[in-house]
Amino acid sequence: MYKKIDSNDIEFLKSVIPQERIFVGEEISHDFSHDELGGIEAMPEVLINVLDTLEVSKIMKYAYDNNIPVVARGSGTGLVGSSTPINGGIMIRTSLMNHILELDEDNLTITVEPGVLLMELQAYVEDHGLFYPPDPGEKTATIGGNISTNAGGMRAVKYGVTRDYVRGLKVVLPNGDIETFGSKCVKNSSGYAMKDLIVGSEGTLCIITEAILKLLPLPSQSVSMLLPFNTMEKAIEVVPEIIKSKASLTAIEYMSLDTIISAESFLGKKFPDTNYEAYILLTFDGNNKQEIEEEYTKVANLCIEHGAIDGYFVDTDERKKSVWSARGAFLEAIKASTDEMDECDVVVPKNKVAKYIEYTHEVAKEVNVRIPSFGHAGDGNLHIYICRDGLNKDEWKLRLNKAFDLLYNKAIEYEGHVSGEHGIGYAKREYLAKQVGDKQIALMQGIKKVFDPKDILNPGKVCYINE
Amino acid sequence: MYKKIDSNDIEFLKSVIPQERIFVGEEISHDFSHDELGGIEAMPEVLINVLDTLEVSKIMKYAYDNNIPVVARGSGTGLVGSSTPINGGIMIRTSLMNHILELDEDNLTITVEPGVLLMELQAYVEDHGLFYPPDPGEKTATIGGNISTNAGGMRAVKYGVTRDYVRGLKVVLPNGDIETFGSKCVKNSSGYAMKDLIVGSEGTLCIITEAILKLLPLPSQSVSMLLPFNTMEKAIEVVPEIIKSKASLTAIEYMSLDTIISAESFLGKKFPDTNYEAYILLTFDGNNKQEIEEEYTKVANLCIEHGAIDGYFVDTDERKKSVWSARGAFLEAIKASTDEMDECDVVVPKNKVAKYIEYTHEVAKEVNVRIPSFGHAGDGNLHIYICRDGLNKDEWKLRLNKAFDLLYNKAIEYEGHVSGEHGIGYAKREYLAKQVGDKQIALMQGIKKVFDPKDILNPGKVCYINE
Repeated sequence: MYKKIDSNDIEFLKSVIPQERIFVGEEISHDFSHDELGGIEAMPEVLINVLDTLEVSKIMKYAYDNNIPVVARGSGTGLVGSSTPINGGIMIRTSLMNHILELDEDNLTITVEPGVLLMELQAYVEDHGLFYPPDPGEKTATIGGNISTNAGGMRAVKYGVTRDYVRGLKVVLPNGDIETFGSKCVKNSSGYAMKDLIVGSEGTLCIITEAILKLLPLPSQSVSMLLPFNTMEKAIEVVPEIIKSKASLTAIEYMSLDTIISAESFLGKKFPDTNYEAYILLTFDGNNKQEIEEEYTKVANLCIEHGAIDGYFVDTDERKKSVWSARGAFLEAIKASTDEMDECDVVVPKNKVAKYIEYTHEVAKEVNVRIPSFGHAGDGNLHIYICRDGLNKDEWKLRLNKAFDLLYNKAIEYEGHVSGEHGIGYAKREYLAKQVGDKQIALMQGIKKVFDPKDILNPGKVCYINE
Repeated sequence: MYKKIDSNDIEFLKSVIPQERIFVGEEISHDFSHDELGGIEAMPEVLINVLDTLEVSKIMKYAYDNNIPVVARGSGTGLVGSSTPINGGIMIRTSLMNHILELDEDNLTITVEPGVLLMELQAYVEDHGLFYPPDPGEKTATIGGNISTNAGGMRAVKYGVTRDYVRGLKVVLPNGDIETFGSKCVKNSSGYAMKDLIVGSEGTLCIITEAILKLLPLPSQSVSMLLPFNTMEKAIEVVPEIIKSKASLTAIEYMSLDTIISAESFLGKKFPDTNYEAYILLTFDGNNKQEIEEEYTKVANLCIEHGAIDGYFVDTDERKKSVWSARGAFLEAIKASTDEMDECDVVVPKNKVAKYIEYTHEVAKEVNVRIPSFGHAGDGNLHIYICRDGLNKDEWKLRLNKAFDLLYNKAIEYEGHVSGEHGIGYAKREYLAKQVGDKQIALMQGIKKVFDPKDILNPGKVCYINE
């Protein structure tokens, strides 16, 4: 059993952190009880806005010695309850640790605190002619959160995911020890891959307080094209053809008319075209205009051969804004279109995407719920939303669970994974366990115990089902 | 204490593996007692050439139940004793597990057994217009070995290291369980990064029996240039300038005249130019000739501004052969130039390479040994060789240890790592411990125990100093 926080604990915390950054009990906003989807809610007993590694270390050491659970939280834009304090205790909020510490142009790295927002990071490096490729849809997420879920985003097709851009991490371990894993170095074969293990561990192994990220030179050219199709099947079936053509693409996104219309209504902005059932959005980037033109001409012709009705360049400022703001608002728009929803973030091999999307339509019919989806056709990572649409609570839970069972079983059948980028957190633990099996869960639990023998850091998440 | 192998054990092993693939005691060639550098030697009690995962599982389960140590070995091209059976026991040799199981052009993946050689893999995929970017100098290494050390190679500057190309692994755990981590999927945020943890774990956590590797389309163009400089300082100082120019390079290698001359003498082949003290070899690749021309013209001009005497294209077949065969033979050539040597595979931030190479010259003077080096200037990973050159054994050990202490201390001072790509194995354990500290070693030992509670799989390596 964890210790409940009492006045002695508060007294200690106020002795190491100025009291204006400590919130206790009813002083804490209800916002901190849940993340973006809110499927699970629990209030922390204390919320602390930390400023540096040493503060995190002092809090953590105290919590460890006194058996108090701790959860770290950034912007709270997660979707699976990773940052929800299900056992109460202390919430360490990193939003004020939002400084860019060093841009190293010799080594093409940037060192940041975990509370820097993705959009701030992207803008900062682009101002310096540099490029941080990971591009998840949620730009107000913190880098700490992106690292903790190994967020992927739209450019994973060409550039890979967050883990590929994390070179080094400064962290606080559950007992308060401060350690550094990795560095600015490009290569490292010195012992086990601790840095890689921490990336994606959803705040269960340690608290990230600093990150060294790899940057690339900013490509001088980036061109996007929007291609309409009569049906989603036709749209998605072209994707393996594009991949087989060995064209170099940065992103291949798919979107259906109903999702686009939700986004139009949510944003109050028109999308360039809403005459067709399905759209594919392609992005090409690089430094040579001619090469990019050759690539997109080749790919556009291939798409037209395979059923694309047309191809629009997303080139004017107005069109860019309309397409990318719609793309960025899909989750919010679907959320606004219904009273409640839950999500499924499966990833499947790229050549299974078409069949999988078709299957979501079958599930929607079978379970009788609305299941809009959109996502990363080029890397097999789909974002699928199951909408409550006014169902009573019991019926909703029943249909939701039935839909989840069908969707996750199909992902396993296709040799996919439960989560491509949102993580497991609290909400997806049983599906992870089903996918990887007891023996792998036991290995993960073993690793968790090595880092956190008292199980005080973000307990009950990822690999713990019965806490 | 481990169990010594007796006739009952042999009887069991022969009941599950045909006896023509089992070698016992004096039937085993002395070659299997050491790796490429041979600093540590120990004979296995039994050597088994395995054919499939199930065989490995049966052997492993028996070894686990009977407390017999097991080491896996591929081509034995390691340099730090990772595959040396320091406690005897069973050596599982994967060289016959050398099949390419599936080339999946839809998903751009290839599934291979661990005994496939790097050169076989590269040739196979290139025949299909595809590309496996990791390019360590030792082409006769197995893929299993490359994965186990997270080998990097020359193209890491642009393409990253082996871990970045491993999508999935089938493994046998120390207790004989068969598990699969990862898949063909591009993204995965489903639980801890077990696949990434296994990559680089030097055969201490499990035995890899199958790997799914990521491929890229083969770039249609690849151009290399050789640039001579009057001094190594001048040659290396240009590298940060190249990186800062944001040029897109595939490889930046450095080589000194003495190393080139060793290679000429070793191969009996002339290098294109031997008039200068130091050379930089640059590679550019891509699909657009014009873009590559622009890049290499820009970079060549930059080099000439910073002291390059000339710039030769490595373009004719003859010149390519002479340059790349020399580059591939450096290790062997240095080895042939002396009676004994040991290596240091440090990695430092890219902008510290020039200073670090200068420091190796200082160490050579201070300790009074010859210390040739070559390596990956573009990613900060240096291959440094300390040559015995006829010293008596005691004096050699004394000077070697002094040189190592100085070199590794300087790498730590520069926030580098003990190994960029060769691993820690047996030889570099104390330097790893010194670099990362007791707490990180304890975390690694904890992880090792989770996978291998009886410590029977490749014991005494990486994070174990006192076994």
